[in-house]
Amino acid sequence: MNRSFHPPRRILMGPGPSDVHPRVLEALARPTIGHLDPAFVELMGEIKTLLQHAFQTKNAMTFPVSGPGTAGMESCFANLVEPGDTVIVCRNGYFGHRMQAMALRCGAEVVTVDAPWGRALDPHNLDDELAKHPAIRLVAFVHAETSTGVLSDAQALAEVARRHNCLTLVDAVTSFAGSPLDVDAWGLDAVYTGSQKCLSCIPGISPLTFSDRAVQAVRARKIPVQSWFMDLTEVEKYWGEGKPGYHHTAPINSLYALHVALLMLQKEGLEPAWARHRLHHEALRAGLESLGMTFIVPEAERTPQLNAVSVPEGVNEAKVRRRLLDEHGLEIGGGLGDFAGQIWRIGLMGYSSRAENILKCIEALEAVLQEEGVDIAAGRAVDEAERVLAEAPLV
Amino acid sequence: MNRSFHPPRRILMGPGPSDVHPRVLEALARPTIGHLDPAFVELMGEIKTLLQHAFQTKNAMTFPVSGPGTAGMESCFANLVEPGDTVIVCRNGYFGHRMQAMALRCGAEVVTVDAPWGRALDPHNLDDELAKHPAIRLVAFVHAETSTGVLSDAQALAEVARRHNCLTLVDAVTSFAGSPLDVDAWGLDAVYTGSQKCLSCIPGISPLTFSDRAVQAVRARKIPVQSWFMDLTEVEKYWGEGKPGYHHTAPINSLYALHVALLMLQKEGLEPAWARHRLHHEALRAGLESLGMTFIVPEAERTPQLNAVSVPEGVNEAKVRRRLLDEHGLEIGGGLGDFAGQIWRIGLMGYSSRAENILKCIEALEAVLQEEGVDIAAGRAVDEAERVLAEAPLV
Repeated sequence: MNRSFHPPRRILMGPGPSDVHPRVLEALARPTIGHLDPAFVELMGEIKTLLQHAFQTKNAMTFPVSGPGTAGMESCFANLVEPGDTVIVCRNGYFGHRMQAMALRCGAEVVTVDAPWGRALDPHNLDDELAKHPAIRLVAFVHAETSTGVLSDAQALAEVARRHNCLTLVDAVTSFAGSPLDVDAWGLDAVYTGSQKCLSCIPGISPLTFSDRAVQAVRARKIPVQSWFMDLTEVEKYWGEGKPGYHHTAPINSLYALHVALLMLQKEGLEPAWARHRLHHEALRAGLESLGMTFIVPEAERTPQLNAVSVPEGVNEAKVRRRLLDEHGLEIGGGLGDFAGQIWRIGLMGYSSRAENILKCIEALEAVLQEEGVDIAAGRAVDEAERVLAEAPLV
Repeated sequence: MNRSFHPPRRILMGPGPSDVHPRVLEALARPTIGHLDPAFVELMGEIKTLLQHAFQTKNAMTFPVSGPGTAGMESCFANLVEPGDTVIVCRNGYFGHRMQAMALRCGAEVVTVDAPWGRALDPHNLDDELAKHPAIRLVAFVHAETSTGVLSDAQALAEVARRHNCLTLVDAVTSFAGSPLDVDAWGLDAVYTGSQKCLSCIPGISPLTFSDRAVQAVRARKIPVQSWFMDLTEVEKYWGEGKPGYHHTAPINSLYALHVALLMLQKEGLEPAWARHRLHHEALRAGLESLGMTFIVPEAERTPQLNAVSVPEGVNEAKVRRRLLDEHGLEIGGGLGDFAGQIWRIGLMGYSSRAENILKCIEALEAVLQEEGVDIAAGRAVDEAERVLAEAPLV
């Protein structure tokens, strides 16, 4: 064992990470400087401003957590839950269940509002449950469920929660930069995301934003946050207003990368980025349906950047994924939890969301499925996808 | 705000991060692949083996935490402390105090064993305290205190702890790869470190190792670990034996970098790496003493890779550091906690620990201190440092 690792060529069309833009990788490799260097502190300010833009918020407490999305999720729960609190966690997939697990670890009593895996959360069900529990002050839900490709109506859910005087804790890992997300207009209170999905940055960073209401709730706690690392009143000594003090050593190079990824998003514009993800979803969808595949999520409830389709009957799904990887350099995702072994998750996120990747994916799937004995008319699926792309008002 | 960030040229001789080797930066920027890609899983295996070598351990549970050293510290406490446990935390600097804060957040009663800031921990004091508290089962201490440059005798402290049937929880952030550290021979149980010190990797990763005794203690817990993200029985679904399952999205690119940094350490060899840090400390010390500076730590208790010296009387320490940064591109550290404003911390860690940096640092300090009105004989300090380097049996 004495050789440096050279990763094989891959096109990342799973549920994340997505392909990282070459400019982001180039920035990542710039020389490391100190986490309290005045030049770095200036960069931190720009990152906060760019994140506010991407989240569409004026929240002062908007910064990247120095860990993966899972650490971002836990940062939200650890700060907003006190032992003995009763909270509502909505569950319609794997990450809703993870939210419940985290809330329990924080000492909460958890009331769940469920929708079937593959369906959006129903604001009326949330309303009913909140009416039964007037003391509840926190509602947690996932905007785009990475396990199923479902997009729930975050605005409607937040409106219900606010009417019941609750804060909202929202997973925007897969929706951020790929689907409309308007933190301030929708009145969301604690929102976290990941760097490695529609932002196309390297994995390991979790941007979050807390509304003033949420910050007040943290400051009003009776019991200290159980995690010293995640306690936002500690973290803000570094990321908050004014001259930063020491809390932990920030992941300097990853933040160079985040900065460039956010600059590129700003340059593209949020609406064009959402439109691109939507268009490419339409093209991929035309191709996948032409291959005989069916989406597991009703059309109105799909998140465009993550396409969940049923594995065709009689097909060994793990073998197909392995062949796509080995023979075509293409990564797609399998199912999680209830859907393990039953679905594929095909991501079109960030820099991976490009016309050439859609065609490549359809061609590769067609070839492998044919060889695995599925009856498919050659070439038609690519034609269908190309037709959608050609008719689009923009690319 | 629309320009990519180009960091200014710096030589990092503070308490960390240290300069990152160009080969590590180059590996960092290789294309991202999936965290469950078979090629990446193979890399994970190599990283675990290389970490076992660097920690000098056969511990199966040896892997990098996906967060900074602070997350590594908290991972150790969160897993080994159950609410209501009484534990001993030794304190002789800032990070011992942080350990206490974390233990308290985990619900521990904390008994402290103190040494003055700038002095090593005394195993006899630990022995006495353990004799008074026979129910205690965990002793936490810092090997090399980054806040003061003190190296305590981890082997002697662990021997005392083991005699009292206690597990040890050890901060090896600054000692790892810079000073002798032999996890198995010394019988240490839970040890964490950082990527950004003597390993000269980018910041944001925290390797840790748990002995079988420590793993058994985690498995025997009555109350689940309060952090889902840090719960090692969850994390090992990804990093443990066998085919990895999903826990969180690993920081892929940072792990490419860690792998190369560990390969370079293996190639240099642990003993040569320690000898290099020791030699360069001797050279820097000769120069600093020739500049009239005094070390705050008695000679036998110094950690060679971090040199803590008193700020000369009448000198504005923050101004000197700022001038070193702005005029010489040189970062050194100020004091923390009890030593804020009173000391400088000059690191010679990893790739920063090179002869040219020692001379550059001494020249720059001499120039700035002279301009700030300190009476120094020009050129003598560099001669002293060069003499030590020239007489050395190795470089």
